Amino acid sequence: MRVILVAGTTRTAEVDGISAAGASRELLVHTPSADAEILTYGDTVRAPVTPVSPTGCPTPAVVTRAVRELLDFEVTVVDGGLARPTGAPTVTVGARPGSDIREADPVPTAPGAFAAAREYGRALPDERIVVGETIPGGTTTAMAVLRALGEETIPATSSSLPENPLDLKERVVADAFEGSDVAPGDGAHTPESVLRYVGDPVLAVAAGLTAGALESGTDVVLGGGTQLLTVAALVRHAGVAERATLATTPYLADDVPGLDNAATGLDLDLVVSDPGFDAAEAGALNAYADGVGKEGAAMGGALRLADEAGRLSDVTDATHAVLDRLEGADQTAAEGRSGP
Amino acid sequence: MRVILVAGTTRTAEVDGISAAGASRELLVHTPSADAEILTYGDTVRAPVTPVSPTGCPTPAVVTRAVRELLDFEVTVVDGGLARPTGAPTVTVGARPGSDIREADPVPTAPGAFAAAREYGRALPDERIVVGETIPGGTTTAMAVLRALGEETIPATSSSLPENPLDLKERVVADAFEGSDVAPGDGAHTPESVLRYVGDPVLAVAAGLTAGALESGTDVVLGGGTQLLTVAALVRHAGVAERATLATTPYLADDVPGLDNAATGLDLDLVVSDPGFDAAEAGALNAYADGVGKEGAAMGGALRLADEAGRLSDVTDATHAVLDRLEGADQTAAEGRSGP
Repeated sequence: MRVILVAGTTRTAEVDGISAAGASRELLVHTPSADAEILTYGDTVRAPVTPVSPTGCPTPAVVTRAVRELLDFEVTVVDGGLARPTGAPTVTVGARPGSDIREADPVPTAPGAFAAAREYGRALPDERIVVGETIPGGTTTAMAVLRALGEETIPATSSSLPENPLDLKERVVADAFEGSDVAPGDGAHTPESVLRYVGDPVLAVAAGLTAGALESGTDVVLGGGTQLLTVAALVRHAGVAERATLATTPYLADDVPGLDNAATGLDLDLVVSDPGFDAAEAGALNAYADGVGKEGAAMGGALRLADEAGRLSDVTDATHAVLDRLEGADQTAAEGRSGP
Repeated sequence: MRVILVAGTTRTAEVDGISAAGASRELLVHTPSADAEILTYGDTVRAPVTPVSPTGCPTPAVVTRAVRELLDFEVTVVDGGLARPTGAPTVTVGARPGSDIREADPVPTAPGAFAAAREYGRALPDERIVVGETIPGGTTTAMAVLRALGEETIPATSSSLPENPLDLKERVVADAFEGSDVAPGDGAHTPESVLRYVGDPVLAVAAGLTAGALESGTDVVLGGGTQLLTVAALVRHAGVAERATLATTPYLADDVPGLDNAATGLDLDLVVSDPGFDAAEAGALNAYADGVGKEGAAMGGALRLADEAGRLSDVTDATHAVLDRLEGADQTAAEGRSGP
């Protein structure tokens, strides 16, 4: 079993108020690099911060790491356009950081990265993989991609913020089509162009990888929410018909009406695994149940694996253990910096 | 426990007859990428070949992978100047492929990669790491580096070939100093310059990483032969005094007279773990006992871990299992290529 995290960036995240994936705009750009390190090492290595939302909700990468410590699955990070160095080992398929989708050609590397990721996905020796993502601003680019594909019935977006800034996202998406060669609905069956003109590099890599894995007979669990639903739509528009699974959290599922219909329409089996973060003993993880974070960094896929192994009830304690180590390390680093 | 494989290239390997790490010169350049994939996935993914010596001895990466399947340690590949794409995830510290050491400035990235790898080594959260290497031609560059450091008492080199082409290596090393700013003995206490002018990028990354890990209190097992002995010498010349372990195979130890004295002189604890590849049932692995391959891809370090876990006697079977899968995959690929 291998969990593959596609980690990258889009400057669309710099639009004020669009993402919760980092306590400040300045730190947002480090979030995917930090998530990759937390998943790989259980700690940050080169990244200067542990990602938390503006209200203090820890990154879902902590939950995925906790499940990894319970189940010992393999983790591979694929570079989906990282903008900051990461200490995590990454597979390179040619993706570069995405520009703001309101620009004319925000992801010129998307077609090449899609193709290289598809080859890589085909060559993977695993029987089953989980695919997840980490990219601040990614729900907005996913909304634009679904619109370009003409997938109007797919619920466009969830948000890492408790109050989804939908109006803001709609404006950004409208502006993206304004300055683009692609119009809504124009991109059916041409996923590479859609990704290039209104998408992001993480969607390009995750969709290519998923397409290649599925067409070579690998079982694929898409671990996440609307971004992974968008990955599935891209894969279908690339002509790949094999069934897959969408594994997500109840926090995401509750936020997206029509998720089950959308999954059915895309030939996905939808599974929702509840780690019980609404319980009193979940502490800081209550934020997930309150609608912050919701999903990300393959969390829903990892929870599905925990569920299959009968370990779902151990996830809260394991997540606290990872958080304690992370906070201890941050504390030590802070003390070191203030030393004589 | 984390095994870190530093994988890279030097064009010094293109000198005819200098390395056994690949059946032909054309395929040599793919060996480190393939070793990284075998260690990560148990199979090649992007690399077009499974590395074997000209006489058919399988790469030691197969042994390290086999031990990984027994013990389930973590693996991280650091890019020490790979010249071909690999499907394995890699950590980037700025190393680029090395040129032939007979050129004037063969490894301009060495000082920067040494420094970045040292930072990375300091930041690793592990209590203990094993460091290994894969770089065809690496014993020749190691010989030049030891000479530049003035470490004349350290046995200069082993070889992946049963008849060590020492005369050839001596000529290459002499030519390297001929066209270089560094003279033998001149490089004491300036490891970065030595690495740049007569070294290779894998030595630069492995030495930086080891220095950083040791100075931050991590236990380091150098898993390999004369190249890892050279890494230790570089670390001492960088002013890092903490003890480390050199873990190698009996095939390498038998080939290098004075290895124990050299280890003692560098404050290394020498451990030799015998997987019994001289036994009849070892089959193709007999080649190791016959002096082909001997070491590489952290094999000695992995055997040490197997020994500590009481699993050394399981390594032969586990290695055959990995080889069978690899050969099955090669067979399938060959059949696919000859299809209609």
